[in-house]
Amino acid sequence: MKVVLISVGDELLAGRVVDTHAALASSELHALGAQVVAHVTVGDPEGALAEVLRRECARADVVLVTGGLGPTEDDRTRSECAQAAGVPLDFHESWWAKIVERYRGSPVKLSERNQRQAFFPRGAQGIENPWGTAPAFSLPIGAATVYCLPGVPHEFRGLLTEVVLPELRGRLPDRSDERVWAFHGVPESTLDAWIVETLEAAGLPPDHHICVKEGEIEVRLRGDFDLLPAAREAFGARCLGEGDLRLPARVIAEARRSGGTVAVAESCTGGIISSRLTDVPGSSAVLRCAWVPYANEAKIAELGVDAREIAEHGAVSAPVAEALARGALERSGARWAVSTTGIAGPTGGSLEKPIGLIWFGVAGPEGVCAGVRRLPGDRNRVRSYGSTQALACLLAAIRGEDPFPWAEGP
Amino acid sequence: MKVVLISVGDELLAGRVVDTHAALASSELHALGAQVVAHVTVGDPEGALAEVLRRECARADVVLVTGGLGPTEDDRTRSECAQAAGVPLDFHESWWAKIVERYRGSPVKLSERNQRQAFFPRGAQGIENPWGTAPAFSLPIGAATVYCLPGVPHEFRGLLTEVVLPELRGRLPDRSDERVWAFHGVPESTLDAWIVETLEAAGLPPDHHICVKEGEIEVRLRGDFDLLPAAREAFGARCLGEGDLRLPARVIAEARRSGGTVAVAESCTGGIISSRLTDVPGSSAVLRCAWVPYANEAKIAELGVDAREIAEHGAVSAPVAEALARGALERSGARWAVSTTGIAGPTGGSLEKPIGLIWFGVAGPEGVCAGVRRLPGDRNRVRSYGSTQALACLLAAIRGEDPFPWAEGP
Repeated sequence: MKVVLISVGDELLAGRVVDTHAALASSELHALGAQVVAHVTVGDPEGALAEVLRRECARADVVLVTGGLGPTEDDRTRSECAQAAGVPLDFHESWWAKIVERYRGSPVKLSERNQRQAFFPRGAQGIENPWGTAPAFSLPIGAATVYCLPGVPHEFRGLLTEVVLPELRGRLPDRSDERVWAFHGVPESTLDAWIVETLEAAGLPPDHHICVKEGEIEVRLRGDFDLLPAAREAFGARCLGEGDLRLPARVIAEARRSGGTVAVAESCTGGIISSRLTDVPGSSAVLRCAWVPYANEAKIAELGVDAREIAEHGAVSAPVAEALARGALERSGARWAVSTTGIAGPTGGSLEKPIGLIWFGVAGPEGVCAGVRRLPGDRNRVRSYGSTQALACLLAAIRGEDPFPWAEGP
Repeated sequence: MKVVLISVGDELLAGRVVDTHAALASSELHALGAQVVAHVTVGDPEGALAEVLRRECARADVVLVTGGLGPTEDDRTRSECAQAAGVPLDFHESWWAKIVERYRGSPVKLSERNQRQAFFPRGAQGIENPWGTAPAFSLPIGAATVYCLPGVPHEFRGLLTEVVLPELRGRLPDRSDERVWAFHGVPESTLDAWIVETLEAAGLPPDHHICVKEGEIEVRLRGDFDLLPAAREAFGARCLGEGDLRLPARVIAEARRSGGTVAVAESCTGGIISSRLTDVPGSSAVLRCAWVPYANEAKIAELGVDAREIAEHGAVSAPVAEALARGALERSGARWAVSTTGIAGPTGGSLEKPIGLIWFGVAGPEGVCAGVRRLPGDRNRVRSYGSTQALACLLAAIRGEDPFPWAEGP
């Protein structure tokens, strides 16, 4: 199944908005086994979308259009689809009634313009949108099925996940026997070579999928084979476990399962670990408190770091990372704590402590320890990778595993 | 000047990576006055890029290609450009010598494959890349100028900013007389109507640009006219000021200018305010400490919130928002502090305190106060908008303005 994603909107072409829809949909479609062959972004001028639709519907099985379903004159997705399909737009009383119903009790006033949203190209199938007022629809153009979804992020996500993906899943080979395992801190090429070898040794064909998401790697494999025991042996805590949970959700789930709570003291990651953990619904049952003790005085006053340790080793050091984790644990009463202190750049690096160097501290029932990594890239990347590494350390600690497994192994 | 952006890479189509290059380039090009007419993402298969190049070079003046300049066989941008232009690839001894020179002393070993990077389509102009090993190049295809840049983020950013934009600026009408003002908390349509009216009253044509970025609105206008006095009168602190600084950078700059420091106590925003502030280089001189007191016990123990206030009013209330801000101020010794406490969802809402309700607290030399907003959308959006609102409150406090101006005004 060949899929083309089309995003519509002048705001995308003006760079006001980063298109995260395309990446989300691509990643989900890739996991289903569909092949995304192009992303295209077009503006709002008349005829722009219709031209792209005619071209892409000639080669794709499915085209996913995002945006342009609002009530204003700039919202042309309905008429552009009709133009590309060579059909008229029809007004649907029943859809209009649903729109009127949705506006009842809403603070936003329904206007005449909203009637536009009850028009569909002839032959289209309306799709209810419980997340917003603009109905979505699907429509055959040539041999392709075109889905048109609103661009509002939560509406798009809802309709993609609840409507489009389940429909497409039915048209793709069954992958319900697929199992997923997650890894962190293993180079993709190393992991790939190891899986090929492991499958070969088990007499299985190498038909696995590897997918990298923000520093985590997912391996997908169909059938009964359990990769976990061999992966744990080869990679230790760098194999995060089975299932497609992302790291923050995995930390929250594992902590809930153990009945324990966590705390964070993050200096160079500046709140990213905490914001990723609290992004997970239900995290309030797990996270007690997080600190961003950016100034040395805050490290000392709030987390009990010894001023002499800072004077002797510097704020970016093993003793300070350990003291931060210990402080967070003791102050919050949590069972586990993780800390970061490092040089995110763009300035502040030295020969001895270059930009990208981060010390991680972990505290828990088994004591306190620290580990160091030098992460590549600019400030943004160092902070983001650093937060992922810290979450992996925290997960290992919750499981009673070595939080710093990167010194050994393949 | 019509511009098309093409991103190359299977990793984009698989959704492993979000394409932020397109938004960055679009926003910069838009600010220069160029018109970006499409973004296209293609994969690595042979012929894919050449086909798109032929099509887009027929209508664009400038095409910017990102990615596919590495040394592997998948890196086909050089040969695809040659194919689209109908020219052969030539090996350049002088560029090879530069590549060899760059690898000297690098931990990465130069291999024979790297010779690929010294081939350019005939007629291309090599562009030195001081940020990495892959040279970039430009090439005429039809009437269009094609620029090929590496996909590695900091290499792309460097070459875009230092080479491509200055070249294009020379081909575009001068916009150095453009002025920018930033707003927050004003509906785009309200702002637009107000600007049209204001310009009309001043006898000026309405040739302004409005651009929305993560809840902030930028207004661009050419010439001498100063929008600030009228904007301040109409919108108070909701007019953030002149210049194209984003809110976190504006907070850091304004605090530095005043010689004061800031602190944050964020519950429902869970670390986002802090991570956005610390994303700004130089923020370590301004942010003393941030807390994410997620558990009520942490609010009480770490920030001195009175347990009886929580029992009486709930954690999401004006007294608790004020106590959090006051606590952050006193504990950190900062001059200003901001706090959030709210219901981010997806559960926890009630009739009285629905999902999206956030109390904001501000503390500073002029005392402590609180304000409330109900923000639309899902957990993600509530948290993100909440962090933007809190930053706007903090900025107003630093300036000695009303941090909660949304009760009045147009």
